[in-house]
Amino acid sequence: MLSPIQEYVEQLHSRYASSMEGHVADYIPELSKADPRLFGICIATRDGHVYEVGDTRHPFTIQSISKALVYGLALEDRGEEHVLSRIGVEPSGEAFNAISLREGSGAPFNPMINAGAIATAGQILKKDGKSRIERVVEYLSGFAGRDLTINQSVYRSESETGHRNRAIGWLLRNFGILDEDPDETLETYFQQCSVEVTCRDLALMGATIANQGIQPLTRKRAIAAEYVDNVLGVMATCGMYDWSGEWIYRVGLPAKSGVGGGILAVLPGQLGIGIFSPPLDKQGNSDRGIKVCMDLSRELALHMMNPTATPRSAIRLKYHGGEVVSRRRLPPQTRDLLRANGTMIQVMELQGGLTFTTIEPVIRLATSLSAECRHIIFDLRAVVNANSVSLILLANLGTRLAPQGVRVIFCQPARLMTALRTVGIPEADIFTTMDAALEHCEDSLLLEVTGASWRPHVPLHLKSCTLFRNCSDAEIAFLESELPRRHYEGGQTIISTGDLATEMLVMVSGNVEVQIPTENLTRKRIDVLTAGMTVGEMAFLDGSARSADVVALESVECVVISKAWFDSLNERNPALKITLLQEMTHEIASRLRQANLSISAFHRS
Amino acid sequence: MLSPIQEYVEQLHSRYASSMEGHVADYIPELSKADPRLFGICIATRDGHVYEVGDTRHPFTIQSISKALVYGLALEDRGEEHVLSRIGVEPSGEAFNAISLREGSGAPFNPMINAGAIATAGQILKKDGKSRIERVVEYLSGFAGRDLTINQSVYRSESETGHRNRAIGWLLRNFGILDEDPDETLETYFQQCSVEVTCRDLALMGATIANQGIQPLTRKRAIAAEYVDNVLGVMATCGMYDWSGEWIYRVGLPAKSGVGGGILAVLPGQLGIGIFSPPLDKQGNSDRGIKVCMDLSRELALHMMNPTATPRSAIRLKYHGGEVVSRRRLPPQTRDLLRANGTMIQVMELQGGLTFTTIEPVIRLATSLSAECRHIIFDLRAVVNANSVSLILLANLGTRLAPQGVRVIFCQPARLMTALRTVGIPEADIFTTMDAALEHCEDSLLLEVTGASWRPHVPLHLKSCTLFRNCSDAEIAFLESELPRRHYEGGQTIISTGDLATEMLVMVSGNVEVQIPTENLTRKRIDVLTAGMTVGEMAFLDGSARSADVVALESVECVVISKAWFDSLNERNPALKITLLQEMTHEIASRLRQANLSISAFHRS
Repeated sequence: MLSPIQEYVEQLHSRYASSMEGHVADYIPELSKADPRLFGICIATRDGHVYEVGDTRHPFTIQSISKALVYGLALEDRGEEHVLSRIGVEPSGEAFNAISLREGSGAPFNPMINAGAIATAGQILKKDGKSRIERVVEYLSGFAGRDLTINQSVYRSESETGHRNRAIGWLLRNFGILDEDPDETLETYFQQCSVEVTCRDLALMGATIANQGIQPLTRKRAIAAEYVDNVLGVMATCGMYDWSGEWIYRVGLPAKSGVGGGILAVLPGQLGIGIFSPPLDKQGNSDRGIKVCMDLSRELALHMMNPTATPRSAIRLKYHGGEVVSRRRLPPQTRDLLRANGTMIQVMELQGGLTFTTIEPVIRLATSLSAECRHIIFDLRAVVNANSVSLILLANLGTRLAPQGVRVIFCQPARLMTALRTVGIPEADIFTTMDAALEHCEDSLLLEVTGASWRPHVPLHLKSCTLFRNCSDAEIAFLESELPRRHYEGGQTIISTGDLATEMLVMVSGNVEVQIPTENLTRKRIDVLTAGMTVGEMAFLDGSARSADVVALESVECVVISKAWFDSLNERNPALKITLLQEMTHEIASRLRQANLSISAFHRS
Repeated sequence: MLSPIQEYVEQLHSRYASSMEGHVADYIPELSKADPRLFGICIATRDGHVYEVGDTRHPFTIQSISKALVYGLALEDRGEEHVLSRIGVEPSGEAFNAISLREGSGAPFNPMINAGAIATAGQILKKDGKSRIERVVEYLSGFAGRDLTINQSVYRSESETGHRNRAIGWLLRNFGILDEDPDETLETYFQQCSVEVTCRDLALMGATIANQGIQPLTRKRAIAAEYVDNVLGVMATCGMYDWSGEWIYRVGLPAKSGVGGGILAVLPGQLGIGIFSPPLDKQGNSDRGIKVCMDLSRELALHMMNPTATPRSAIRLKYHGGEVVSRRRLPPQTRDLLRANGTMIQVMELQGGLTFTTIEPVIRLATSLSAECRHIIFDLRAVVNANSVSLILLANLGTRLAPQGVRVIFCQPARLMTALRTVGIPEADIFTTMDAALEHCEDSLLLEVTGASWRPHVPLHLKSCTLFRNCSDAEIAFLESELPRRHYEGGQTIISTGDLATEMLVMVSGNVEVQIPTENLTRKRIDVLTAGMTVGEMAFLDGSARSADVVALESVECVVISKAWFDSLNERNPALKITLLQEMTHEIASRLRQANLSISAFHRS
């Protein structure tokens, strides 16, 4: 099915397909040959999905759009302060070809006017055996995600007619903004402007900037993350010649246009837009490009200052240890204790990008909860990324709460581990699964409440096993005499998925883990059972195949209840059978209650 | 406990507390009296939480900061196009007091220079019996959330020495930018600059703009939402005099400073910052204010172009109808059918703010899923707000999928109802609870799979009731003879929370709803049971008190199993007791399996 978004872009294209205002650039003969009917619109998301319509694969020269990107290379080569000492970042209020140099220093007002762009080209280093222009073309190619080339006839045309730019070059040399005679720098600049791109390239270049500098398709870094906001900053204030103020006012997207008819616009962190239509308006911006961007910004609500597109609190879900418990089985009375004291363990599931704004409400809530709990678990598994300020605030929270006896614990995916360590969060406070984190807090809480470990002293007498707790002494003796014992070594598989369930086991010592295979061939733990509990009763009861593996975690001793023996009780000892069935029903019902509590906790919103 | 965020703001304050560079404004005697040591920092979130340190409650005059806000009033009074015809929005590259008027039209370059601000004051209407300045003070008070007043001695001082501004006023009159002689407009302007605010006011004013124009504490609208981005736009390009470009480059927050020593900065959609420190740098901006904002922006990563602070896909959770089912009980075989065909119902739980960027991946996923399902449910309950483009795209998705036989359904909170209707989503596709939405899809799917309704034809014979399905004919006859029948009218309460469970019921006709009381005194449905099912067996089994109410939805006929009778079976008919217990255990175990499936679906991330 055609996506409604693709449909929208197509409608937008038709809306302006016959609009032919403005004039193709004619200051050099090569540009004046452009077909004014060419028209492409392209939107690229930061994960590299592209919506495109019209002449989005038609090559044209990048022209001034290169100024914004090459400025990034200058920053990478020379550092921010050096570049700022040569080229300002103030809008000049003048046209692109004005020779706006600051009184005294001779520094161009900003890198988006020709003087600033030529000065910027002069900052590019020759490196690794490559000339300036080779490095520039390679750099621009990194944004596009493909090898770009120079249109030689446009370059020759630019170079032959670039008298004014040569004058600018010599003025810059005069002021010492250029360290050497300007010829090579000027040729670099003329070639840089003559690099051929398509409308699709522009959108992907924008998406690369939106994606913190990583090209979405090649997954390679095109620009250092730290300079992304600088490039966007100059695009925002100076990108559209002397229409920049009105552009930000109306369209609200950092952008750069070129006289070849291209416009590259970026919604920071979100998407890139490329427009191609050669006829220019009187400020030198693509006439249709401006119209399309104004419509796009308004109709898709892309204005950067539009406050509907803002991050919210990172809290996805908040619950406590009485609602959601670790996936291990606990004895009934332990389960009850945990449910009664569950609010002492508070869990906040965080999501999305962690920034000051999204973490601030989290810190606020945690600060207030800390008065009445002993453990705060931050589940970071749904966190997509986290900037350092957010992690520092979480680390500080832990440091400040420790003296109050409140422990802050993190459950996190491997990818955040280095970042968490870097901000000084102790290794011991970081868990890799929620089960491990919850278990840790539960054990600590139960120890505090009861003064002793909930784990049974083993081996247990049968009467201490849950299934048999309502049996009479005579029944216990009967069970002792009838039920065979079995032993498993640690690591041994007790039950295999898919097997027919012909028995259930009652453990008198040891621990077992219930596991299911996952998509990536590892095994996921779904339960842990300890001495006193019944193993494998679900499939045993409903006659279905085993739905999970059970593996001994250590040496395990158990009694075996076979289906034949259990069936035989109907005749031989119906009272015992009834007692056992009632206990099993009771136990499963209790687990169902807990499961329903968890579902309610997960389900509320 | 002191929040780590409060602690950070305090540290930042100490860092600059002794820094005393720059000079207090002295162009009028009143301003020169300001104590250069005064220093306040305040951050206000868009929900009105305030972090403040230092002299945040000390009054000072708002000065040029008023220009940004009063521009909003001019837009509200006259509309965007009219205001733009009188006052441009281009940065001038010149100092604040330059007389930058466009050649020809005489329009000031932008509303942040004095000429533009005086022209803006001239746009304010006298209305509702109020003078211009009364309306201006009221307007500014709306942002602060308290009644502001004019500092009369500063006003007199401004008026007595404002010769240059008077010259500007007459030039504007000369060009017809002002429609009347400038005296009253100038006095309005001088008074507007003399309104007293505090650092805290500035932060809350900023938070108001961040909050789409709603003052976070009073919850009243201070500025029409449609003009918020315009005000932010001129702040971004022209707010910091001739340091605006460098400000956006380095700090990246739309802001406005005043010679009184204040700076108001906004992270659009997120928070407001107020700084107060009277000594100014050579551009006329608060020297410490600039330094603090540079640190704040870098250390809290608040740069507007910083891409970590961006919205992500709105998809919170995706699951299908085999994993999560409506909270009503289904007969076992129906449950199995649903589990087998569950992928035909796809559910996407959306969250946060819906914008083009957050909805685009949703549309993309839905478009691809539509090839292999019959129902797509969008659960909108966790959606905080939705702009119209996002809803239009969802509506278009429904329209396009209908001919393919795929139904798009919405579960939404009441607050989105009007918005959903406005974009043309049919009433029949909107459900208010997920249960209702799931039930609708489940019924439709089951009908399609089996060709008949799954609902039992009633009244049922006992043998057709789940609990009795494994009973022999003799046992059925025994049950018929022993179990009393009971009748309930629709609306009658069958079980009340807290009661002791002395019986369970097997329904032969009718429907009942299981409800729990909620915090706001309404009742929440947690289950619906139909004929053939057992009611109240959980508490009956484990001897606990009833945990929910059960209410007849229509006329209900059932047989009653009392605890005494059930117990008596141990002796009188142990075989039947065993059969019944086994069936109950089987049923509860099956529900536990489904619950565990749901938990896994909710828990993955």
